[in-house]
Amino acid sequence: MYRVEIYDTTLRDGAQAEDVSFSVEDKLRISQRLDDLGVHYIEGGWPGSNPKDIEFFREIKRLDLKTSKVVAFGSTRRATNRIENDPVTRSLLDAKTEVITIFGKSWDLHISDALRISLKKNLELISDSVSYLKSKKRKVFYDAEHFFDGYRSNPEYAIKTLLSAEAAGADTIILCDTNGGTMPWYVEEVFEKVRNELRCPIGIHAHNDSDMAVANTLVAVRKGASQVHGTINGFGERCGNANLSSIIPDLKFKMNIDCISDEKLRHIKEVSHFVNEIANLPHQKHQPYVGESAFAHKAGVHIDAVGKNPVTYEHIPPELVGNSRRILISDYAGRSSLLKKGEEYNILLEKEGPEVASILHKLKGLESQGYQFEGADGSLELLMKRAIAGHKRSFDLVGFRVIVEKRREDEDPISEATIMVKVGGAVEHTAAVGNGPVNALDNALRKALEKFYPDLADVKLLDYKVRVLAANKGTGSKVRVLIESGDMEGKWGTVGVSENIIEASWQALVDSIEYKLLKGKKKKPEKSC
Amino acid sequence: MYRVEIYDTTLRDGAQAEDVSFSVEDKLRISQRLDDLGVHYIEGGWPGSNPKDIEFFREIKRLDLKTSKVVAFGSTRRATNRIENDPVTRSLLDAKTEVITIFGKSWDLHISDALRISLKKNLELISDSVSYLKSKKRKVFYDAEHFFDGYRSNPEYAIKTLLSAEAAGADTIILCDTNGGTMPWYVEEVFEKVRNELRCPIGIHAHNDSDMAVANTLVAVRKGASQVHGTINGFGERCGNANLSSIIPDLKFKMNIDCISDEKLRHIKEVSHFVNEIANLPHQKHQPYVGESAFAHKAGVHIDAVGKNPVTYEHIPPELVGNSRRILISDYAGRSSLLKKGEEYNILLEKEGPEVASILHKLKGLESQGYQFEGADGSLELLMKRAIAGHKRSFDLVGFRVIVEKRREDEDPISEATIMVKVGGAVEHTAAVGNGPVNALDNALRKALEKFYPDLADVKLLDYKVRVLAANKGTGSKVRVLIESGDMEGKWGTVGVSENIIEASWQALVDSIEYKLLKGKKKKPEKSC
Repeated sequence: MYRVEIYDTTLRDGAQAEDVSFSVEDKLRISQRLDDLGVHYIEGGWPGSNPKDIEFFREIKRLDLKTSKVVAFGSTRRATNRIENDPVTRSLLDAKTEVITIFGKSWDLHISDALRISLKKNLELISDSVSYLKSKKRKVFYDAEHFFDGYRSNPEYAIKTLLSAEAAGADTIILCDTNGGTMPWYVEEVFEKVRNELRCPIGIHAHNDSDMAVANTLVAVRKGASQVHGTINGFGERCGNANLSSIIPDLKFKMNIDCISDEKLRHIKEVSHFVNEIANLPHQKHQPYVGESAFAHKAGVHIDAVGKNPVTYEHIPPELVGNSRRILISDYAGRSSLLKKGEEYNILLEKEGPEVASILHKLKGLESQGYQFEGADGSLELLMKRAIAGHKRSFDLVGFRVIVEKRREDEDPISEATIMVKVGGAVEHTAAVGNGPVNALDNALRKALEKFYPDLADVKLLDYKVRVLAANKGTGSKVRVLIESGDMEGKWGTVGVSENIIEASWQALVDSIEYKLLKGKKKKPEKSC
Repeated sequence: MYRVEIYDTTLRDGAQAEDVSFSVEDKLRISQRLDDLGVHYIEGGWPGSNPKDIEFFREIKRLDLKTSKVVAFGSTRRATNRIENDPVTRSLLDAKTEVITIFGKSWDLHISDALRISLKKNLELISDSVSYLKSKKRKVFYDAEHFFDGYRSNPEYAIKTLLSAEAAGADTIILCDTNGGTMPWYVEEVFEKVRNELRCPIGIHAHNDSDMAVANTLVAVRKGASQVHGTINGFGERCGNANLSSIIPDLKFKMNIDCISDEKLRHIKEVSHFVNEIANLPHQKHQPYVGESAFAHKAGVHIDAVGKNPVTYEHIPPELVGNSRRILISDYAGRSSLLKKGEEYNILLEKEGPEVASILHKLKGLESQGYQFEGADGSLELLMKRAIAGHKRSFDLVGFRVIVEKRREDEDPISEATIMVKVGGAVEHTAAVGNGPVNALDNALRKALEKFYPDLADVKLLDYKVRVLAANKGTGSKVRVLIESGDMEGKWGTVGVSENIIEASWQALVDSIEYKLLKGKKKKPEKSC
C-alpha cells in the first residue's frame, strides 16, 4: 500500500465558493472534524488577506488536534518588497504554523499580463520566498499556480519555476490546475515529465471547471503524486475544488491506497453533512459515496436484484462510508420493493397475499394523481398500516375555515384559521393566526390537539415543499405538498395533493401528526392498546 | 474532426433519480428542447414498465422533431417467453420508434444470482431479441449492462455476450458501467480489448458513483467510442448518469470533437436550467459550464487579473455555452447587465446616472429578500419603468378576503375570494370561487378588472410555480411564486415573495396584469396617453 497525504483546503479555497462564508468559530468547528477524520493538513486561511484568518490562526492553537497539521497559505513576496519587509511573508510567519504553503506563478502569460514583471524576476521571487521561510524553520509547500496552463504555454520555463522552488528547499511541490480546464490525459503526460525533473515529493491541486477535478487527482496519484489537495463536498471558487468526499473513498477502495483509516472513513458522510450544515447549504443528494441517494434504489429491477445480492447494483457496501441502502417507492417499483419497505416498517406482508395487491393498487392510483412517496416515508408507512390493520384515526375533523384578508396594498394580509376537531367524545373548537394560511392552519390544528396528545409539542416542521403539477392550468393547477417533520428521535416525510394548496397541506399535516402518534404507540404498546 | 453521437436518457435513466418524476407533458416539453439542442437520440422511456411511457410514445409523434430520433428502451426477452409472445418485446415494437435500445446481461454473477439462468441461455436471449427486432426493421442498440464488472469477473464470457449481439445484427453496442464503480484507466484497458473484437460502432454509458462518469465517457471516446449516453445535469439513479451538460462542452472544447453545432451549444445553459425547472429542482450553482457560479469570481486577485485578461482565470469564454462572467461583491457587473436589459426593454439608461444606481439598489434589496428576476422579466421591466417614469398603477386595491372552508374530512374545501378595487373614480366590489384560494383570488381580480380593461380577457395564466425558500421554518417559511402569463402575442413572467403564499401570489398576479396593460399602451400610445 502506497501512502498519500490528504491536504484539505475547505477553509481557504473552499471559502472562495459563492455563498460560502465561514466565521472564525465555524472554521474552528470544521477543523476539529477534519482532525477527527484524520486528514494530514488543514489549510486554515490566508493571514495576509483578511483579519478573520489572523484570528483563526491564533484561536486554532487552543484546539488539541491529534492528526492534522494546520497550514497558513499565502503568496511569494511582492516584486517591489525585500523579503524581510514583505507584509505577506510576515503575516505567514506570524501565523506560527509548522507548515506554510505559498503559491507562485508558472505561466508566462500571467507573469507578463497579471504580475507585469520579467520571467527572471519571477524565479527570484519564488526562490527568495521559499528559502526565507525555510530559514525560519518552517516546512514549506510550494503551489505552482496554473502549472498545466503554464506548461502548455512554455514548458521549459514552467519547469524552471519548479526547480527554483526545489533548489530553495521546498518540501513538497504541488502542481495546480487553477483554471480547471485540463484533461486527465494531459495531467498524466505532464506528471511524467515533471517526475523526471524533480526529486522532492509532488502534489496535485485540481479545480472542477471541466468536471475533471477528481479524475485529474487520481491519475496524478497513479503518476506518483503523494499529496492531494481538495475540499469537503468540492467547495471552491467557480465550479469548486477537487472533492475530497469522493477522492478519499476512491483512493481507498479503487486504488487500495492508504490515506485515512478504515475506521475514520466511516465518518466521511457525517463530516460532509456537517460542513454543509455549517455553510448553511443543502446536502447534495446525489453526491457520490456521501449523498442520501448514493445507495438509493428506485427501479424495480434494481430493487429486486439488490435484495438477492447487493453487489448487483452497489459498487461498495454503503456502511464503509457511513451511508446506508435506501429503497424508494415509485411507479418504477413493484411487489418486491413493497415487501422490503414492509420489513423496514415491521409490517409482515406476503408476496402473493391480497394486502400487497391492494396496497400496490392504491399506491399506483395515488401516484397517477400526483402523490409521490419517495420523500414521504411517513405517509407510505401510514398507508400500508391503514391497508392491513384498519389503523384508527387519532381525531376527526368537524371543520376548518381559513381566512386571508388584505386591507391595504402596502400591508401584508392577516391569516387566521379556525378549527373544530373531535377526539374520542370531546370536541375542541379553537383558532390561531399564522404567517400565511397554511401556517395558521398548522398552528390551529396543533393547538386543538396538544391538549389530548401533549407529545405533539415535540414535533417540529423542518421542511415544507410545494410543487405545482401540470402547471398549465395556471393558478388552478394541482399542487403537491411535502412536509418533513422531526422530533428528538427522528424525521419523517408526509405528502398531500390537491388543486387547493390548503387541502394538500392539510393532508400532509394530518399524516405528520398521525405518524407521530403512531410512533408513540409503537414505543409503549402495553399502555396504549 | 471525429464525430460522436449524443444519446440523451434524461427521460428514462434520468427519471430514475430520487426526486425526479416527469409527467407525459413534462417529457414532451423536454424532448422539444433536446431536439432544439441537437442531440442525436432521445431515449423516451421504458414502454414495458409503465403506462405513462406508453402514452409518451403515442404523444411524441405529434411533435415535429428536427434532429433527434426518439428511442424506446427495454430489456432482452424473458427466459420463459418465446420472443413472439414476449410482452416487453411487444411493447417496444408498439412504441413505433425507428430505434430501439435493449439491455442484456454481461456479468456472470448477475446471470446466476439475479436472472438465475445459465450463461448459455443468456446468450440466446440476447441473440433472439436483437435479431427479432432487426427483422422488424428497427435500428437496434444493445446496452451491455454491467459490462466492466462482467469483464472483470469473466472477460471471455463478457465478450461473448457482445459477439452474440453483433452477430444478431446490433447496430451499435454500448458498454455500460451500470454500478458506476469503474476507474478511467480500466475503461481504457477494456475499450482497447473490445475494439479488437468487434466491428460495429461502440458506445459508452457511465454512472457517477465514483465521481468518474464524465472522465470515463471521455476516455472511452479517446479509445474509439462513437456514441455517448448521458443525461442533462447528470440526473439518474443513485449518484446519477454521465452529465451531458459537461460532456458536450468537453468534447467540443477539450477534444475538438464534433457532436452538436457551436450555435446550438450556446443554448446548453438554458436547456440545463429548463430541465431543472421542469423537474422542480434547484440549479446547481457550481455545475461546470452551465452553473451560475461557473464563471463567477470572488477572490480579489482573480477579479483583478480577469479584468486585465479573462483567460487568466477562465478556461473558456463563458458565452460559448450561453453563460456569462460574474463579478461577485462589486456592483460593476450589475450596472452593465442592467444597461443591457434596459436596451432590450427600450429604456435608455445612462451608466453613471442616478436611475441606474437606484434600480440596482432596489434590485439588490429585493434579491436579498428572495425575489429572482431570471424567470420574471415582466416584473423586472415594470420595476425599471416604475423607477424611471413614475409608472402609474392601473388600479388600487381597497381590500380582499380569501376564505377556505372545509366541512367534512372526505370533501374538498370550498375557496371563495371577495375583492374591492378602485379604477379611476369607480369602485368595483365582487366575489368569485376557485379550485383553491389563489385561483379564487385570481378569478375575482379578473372579474373586477375586465369591466374596465376588456383586453385582460385575452390573458391566460400558463404556468404557476411555488418555491419554498429557506424551508427550515416549516409552514411559516417564505415562498416565491413565479407566474407565466401569455396572450396571443407573447409570454411574460412575474414574481412575488412573502411568508404568505396568498400575498406572494397576489404580487405576481398584479404584476402580470400591469404588464399586460402596459404592453397595450405601448402598442397604441396615441390613444391612451
